[in-house]
Amino acid sequence: MAKPTPLSGFPELLPAARAVEREVISSLSRTFELHGFANIETRVVEPLERLAKGGEIDKEIYVLRRLQAPDDAESADETGSERQLGLHFDLTVPFARYVLENAGHLEFPFRRFQIQPAWRGERPQEGRYRQFTQADVDIVGKDALPFHHDVEVMRVMVRALGSLPLPPLSFQVNNRKLIQGFYRGLGIPDVTAAIRQIDKLDKLPPETVAELLVEHAGATPEQADRCLELATIRVSDPTLVQRVQALGVVDELLSRGLAELASVLEGCADAVKASDGRVSVEANLRIARGLDYYTGTVVEIYMEGYERLKAVGGGGRYDALADDGRTTYPGVGVSFGISRTLLPLLADGVLEGSRAVPSVVLVALADEESRPAAEMLADRLRSRDIAAEVAASPQKYGRQIRYAERRGIPFVWFPATEHGESDQVKDIRSGEQVDADAATWGPAEEDLRPGMVVSTSSTDEPGSIDERQEA
Amino acid sequence: MAKPTPLSGFPELLPAARAVEREVISSLSRTFELHGFANIETRVVEPLERLAKGGEIDKEIYVLRRLQAPDDAESADETGSERQLGLHFDLTVPFARYVLENAGHLEFPFRRFQIQPAWRGERPQEGRYRQFTQADVDIVGKDALPFHHDVEVMRVMVRALGSLPLPPLSFQVNNRKLIQGFYRGLGIPDVTAAIRQIDKLDKLPPETVAELLVEHAGATPEQADRCLELATIRVSDPTLVQRVQALGVVDELLSRGLAELASVLEGCADAVKASDGRVSVEANLRIARGLDYYTGTVVEIYMEGYERLKAVGGGGRYDALADDGRTTYPGVGVSFGISRTLLPLLADGVLEGSRAVPSVVLVALADEESRPAAEMLADRLRSRDIAAEVAASPQKYGRQIRYAERRGIPFVWFPATEHGESDQVKDIRSGEQVDADAATWGPAEEDLRPGMVVSTSSTDEPGSIDERQEA
Repeated sequence: MAKPTPLSGFPELLPAARAVEREVISSLSRTFELHGFANIETRVVEPLERLAKGGEIDKEIYVLRRLQAPDDAESADETGSERQLGLHFDLTVPFARYVLENAGHLEFPFRRFQIQPAWRGERPQEGRYRQFTQADVDIVGKDALPFHHDVEVMRVMVRALGSLPLPPLSFQVNNRKLIQGFYRGLGIPDVTAAIRQIDKLDKLPPETVAELLVEHAGATPEQADRCLELATIRVSDPTLVQRVQALGVVDELLSRGLAELASVLEGCADAVKASDGRVSVEANLRIARGLDYYTGTVVEIYMEGYERLKAVGGGGRYDALADDGRTTYPGVGVSFGISRTLLPLLADGVLEGSRAVPSVVLVALADEESRPAAEMLADRLRSRDIAAEVAASPQKYGRQIRYAERRGIPFVWFPATEHGESDQVKDIRSGEQVDADAATWGPAEEDLRPGMVVSTSSTDEPGSIDERQEA
Repeated sequence: MAKPTPLSGFPELLPAARAVEREVISSLSRTFELHGFANIETRVVEPLERLAKGGEIDKEIYVLRRLQAPDDAESADETGSERQLGLHFDLTVPFARYVLENAGHLEFPFRRFQIQPAWRGERPQEGRYRQFTQADVDIVGKDALPFHHDVEVMRVMVRALGSLPLPPLSFQVNNRKLIQGFYRGLGIPDVTAAIRQIDKLDKLPPETVAELLVEHAGATPEQADRCLELATIRVSDPTLVQRVQALGVVDELLSRGLAELASVLEGCADAVKASDGRVSVEANLRIARGLDYYTGTVVEIYMEGYERLKAVGGGGRYDALADDGRTTYPGVGVSFGISRTLLPLLADGVLEGSRAVPSVVLVALADEESRPAAEMLADRLRSRDIAAEVAASPQKYGRQIRYAERRGIPFVWFPATEHGESDQVKDIRSGEQVDADAATWGPAEEDLRPGMVVSTSSTDEPGSIDERQEA
């Protein structure tokens, strides 16, 4: 077996970096749970016809075939029920299907979070992988879902991300009702086409977008200018309402959208404050999000210093997340790209794992015969929630200390010898060695688990957080 | 979109059952970490040639193809590097590949645990799924791996499983050196063929296996009888050594295997005792495990009352887990089938989730205007690690209580009204309602998180555990 080489687009983490990812997932999960969100996991496959419904991302779907199955994968197998299956490319399609399939067993509004990989066969690049993990929170109602859940779901994501030691994140929020109402009130003939053109503002200069508005949405040049004026508004305080009203367009839908957007800003204010500068929320009236199913709140999340990754999260309100022909399930949710965010930060050394093993203590071994006693000693530490391992072999103590050092294990424990001395524990970072009792000794809180080390090498860069963060 | 139907072989859990699975995974993970095992996750795909190496399970592999890729999936794509990929069917093949790929960045002995799904396109049945989750622990060395790690890895799995509220589990241990040495000492011409025949004892009657030993392994009828005698030995105490020696076969490899097996029993004894009857470990000299790569310790795990599932876990020692032509990486590990175990127990009602939502408290809502205040109150509880949600709408309090009841939320919180009374909290199970302060009130420990309810409906059945277990 030759030495294998990595597969492009399928990144994997070494143990210390994986510990960072685990702590991030665990921290996000705990915040979601504290807000009443239940976890689910869906199978990784969906029938192809359900995945391909959207149309536009067909080419990125991975389809499955059993190696020994007949070439025509559509053909029924021995159970007569085999269908062509593909790997899901996001967590929304499987969640919508899960809601429809289990609606009779769920209580609505149903709050769920889901942290799983998804797959897209697109060309790999920084922040874009063929297998990537994301964290989704959604609230789904039956028939109706009051607007206050829009605020709730944004707020929980602000709180969740505000607890992580990442570069500052910016939630850029808009509202589709606001844009649609504005365009309607302005008299633009094709509102949907107008949204689609405005969505191109991050790639094209404003003049070009203005021309496209005239060409594809039937706007007059004056109307196009007003659309661009609206799109330039970026504000995080209550002046939002006046600034939009100052443009002089009057429309009932616009008013509702504007009120909703103002409510999202207001509702997130305390969570933004609590994040201590880690998260900001602002209205950005050029955010449209191309996907047609958004109907109200829309959001995109950007990371300071990593604008090149584009959005690292996003979501919004969809009035028909799922629909089985009899019942409609409206939803609102936000998705955060864990791989998209962490992998570049780990690669850049902005985030680092503090050690590759969970062990806090290496129990040193005088000779092979004392292994059972050393294991019992380790068990006493473990029973007090202190991770411990016993040295792999009874080398000279100096070599056992270096063994711990290479693994990043902070403490080495020397059991009492027959001569009757006390047990001793050495902090191998400071060299300090003291008498210790396995029934009472404990490490500092920050040594208890592998944590995240946030780089201090770039403290003058925007977005760096110069502290050692225990997650 | 019509109501979707489940896909056979791809089971999914409702939120309360998923909470059980999460608690099981979290409990296993914590035990592994306390013993110094680091977590890793591997990508779900491997190049097909790596998966198909074993040969015997080719037909169960799912291969991947990008929907819009050329039919000949072997052809290079635009990067010139695309290879045919399949979903992994266990966690051992990807782990071996991970070790080879990252050997330069790992410290050996390398202890890892891995809890992920795997996929096999086999016919679905109880305990056998096309997507299933398993938990693997392995210790891998470079060039050499001392035997004491066999004891270590068995012991950590006994401890991990002994902490779970499952029906009693039996570790049935054997040693390939013992069997091989015994057959060799006995003078059987084809030792490997003999092992393969003995492995059929769980499907065929002893007489038939004796005939097969004569036919395929070149044994005399007398030798075949002695092989069967060895295979009937099942013992969990130190009489093991005498019972094997009483068969009168002398062989150096047999002696070493017997000593190793006795060491595993002895080394696990304290962990078995600590499990309080939940786990037993015994030598069962007919366990061979068909796979050719095992070279010493072998183990299979069975669950009382669920023998029909066959083994719910297994593993052993392989002297060449991985090999890159220059270096060999011996390993020892055990795998536990999480889906295989939990799904039947959940289906039978032996295990149940205590509630479908993480929320401990529902904050009642007097009117829509008080929602921000209610959210702030919920935040005070959340900041003290008490999960809380605010009522979805300001219905009459009786309806809000029933809303909590349907979700299994144990407490409803009534904020003080303008009239200046105190906040009150109601335990909706007992009906008790008391004054409370969000800065100090807390629920009983067992209400803090959704846990597992272990069925009490079959206390006279073997294997039932009649207690409510908070995981």
